[in-house]
Amino acid sequence: MDDLERLRDELRAFSAARDWDQFHSPKNLAMALAGEAAEILEIFQWLTEAQSRAPDEKARAAARDEIADVLLYLIRLADQLGIDPLAEAKRKLGENAKRYPADKSRGNARKYTDL
Amino acid sequence: MDDLERLRDELRAFSAARDWDQFHSPKNLAMALAGEAAEILEIFQWLTEAQSRAPDEKARAAARDEIADVLLYLIRLADQLGIDPLAEAKRKLGENAKRYPADKSRGNARKYTDL
Amino acid sequence: MDDLERLRDELRAFSAARDWDQFHSPKNLAMALAGEAAEILEIFQWLTEAQSRAPDEKARAAARDEIADVLLYLIRLADQLGIDPLAEAKRKLGENAKRYPADKSRGNARKYTDL
Amino acid sequence: MDDLERLRDELRAFSAARDWDQFHSPKNLAMALAGEAAEILEIFQWLTEAQSRAPDEKARAAARDEIADVLLYLIRLADQLGIDPLAEAKRKLGENAKRYPADKSRGNARKYTDL
Repeated sequence: MDDLERLRDELRAFSAARDWDQFHSPKNLAMALAGEAAEILEIFQWLTEAQSRAPDEKARAAARDEIADVLLYLIRLADQLGIDPLAEAKRKLGENAKRYPADKSRGNARKYTDL
Repeated sequence: MDDLERLRDELRAFSAARDWDQFHSPKNLAMALAGEAAEILEIFQWLTEAQSRAPDEKARAAARDEIADVLLYLIRLADQLGIDPLAEAKRKLGENAKRYPADKSRGNARKYTDL
Repeated sequence: MDDLERLRDELRAFSAARDWDQFHSPKNLAMALAGEAAEILEIFQWLTEAQSRAPDEKARAAARDEIADVLLYLIRLADQLGIDPLAEAKRKLGENAKRYPADKSRGNARKYTDL
Repeated sequence: MDDLERLRDELRAFSAARDWDQFHSPKNLAMALAGEAAEILEIFQWLTEAQSRAPDEKARAAARDEIADVLLYLIRLADQLGIDPLAEAKRKLGENAKRYPADKSRGNARKYTDL
């Protein structure tokens, strides 16, 4: 069992203990996930890119919390859909490596719409 | 090394090979992450909650791709900030367990603003 | 001068008086706009569709504030880009009317990805 | 009747002609609005702030379309909630003027979390 599967099982138990599955439809979890991702935006929206690369401790602490929330909702959403997020991320990264050949994509601002 | 750390290292190599670190400021990655999270929204926005619990294959395939993109950008963003997303998610889940006692939170629509 | 142009001019004066134009790049305003739009998500994410059609006074008050914030940032962003949001909305609505003929689109869940 | 009220009425007729009111719950419209706002993010996410202040024609055209979509969904959402977006924006701007006194807020990066 990988690390995300362990966290997935803890989230299942957490939700079951509170009878929250009724609220955890993919539709609702997608909204919660987007909301948490937007809270990360708010940390950096008035910082320059350079400032965002060296955030102060308050911004770093906020980023730690929001990154955690995004990961938790992402795992929960994937579980409700029967999707393995780690396997899909590995697959997608492999596809991106083919899609953006290193030699053709180097420093190319038109090509990095994917990681 | 955990699974997300392995993926983090692959993303570092992927970005280095393309000279994309210059574009991967936390500010820019936060924007890309929020954009990918919003693409998950678009899959479910016109579905009922019940429909979102039983998506057709086209919606499921889209969800697999977008969940992968969110995880990849989240890992990349966390890496650029020196944050361990798995450790933070475990910490946050522990805090949420204290914040939402099972007996007091059961089926309570006012309390599930966190997982 | 239309209503949004009047508000645009008030926002210009508001920002000039505070020397905030330096922070109001389209990139930053796009982040602020997406952040405010996501705050509307958070109002409705745990409500059913039916509940969202009859929100309580607390939810309605929150919606009033967030809708205002989205409109203010949208006008400010459009102004920084030299875009007339009202003219573009009228144009887009006209295009959507052609794109989704009433007779072919009636009640069609596949077609209403645009208003 | 102000400009947004006219557009509101056109959107009502547009939706009624297609029998789309059934899909236009505030919950669904909030998701569509956040999705469109995120599409504006994607236009600027890999541009520097300076580049975002002078976008090329392709980026400008995309911004015109997405700004239009955000305004249309915002008006539609506000209508479904019985909210007057223009009146609320004027109110909120007045509140912000009090909240951020010009003399105290000038160039102050800690204070411009609102316009």
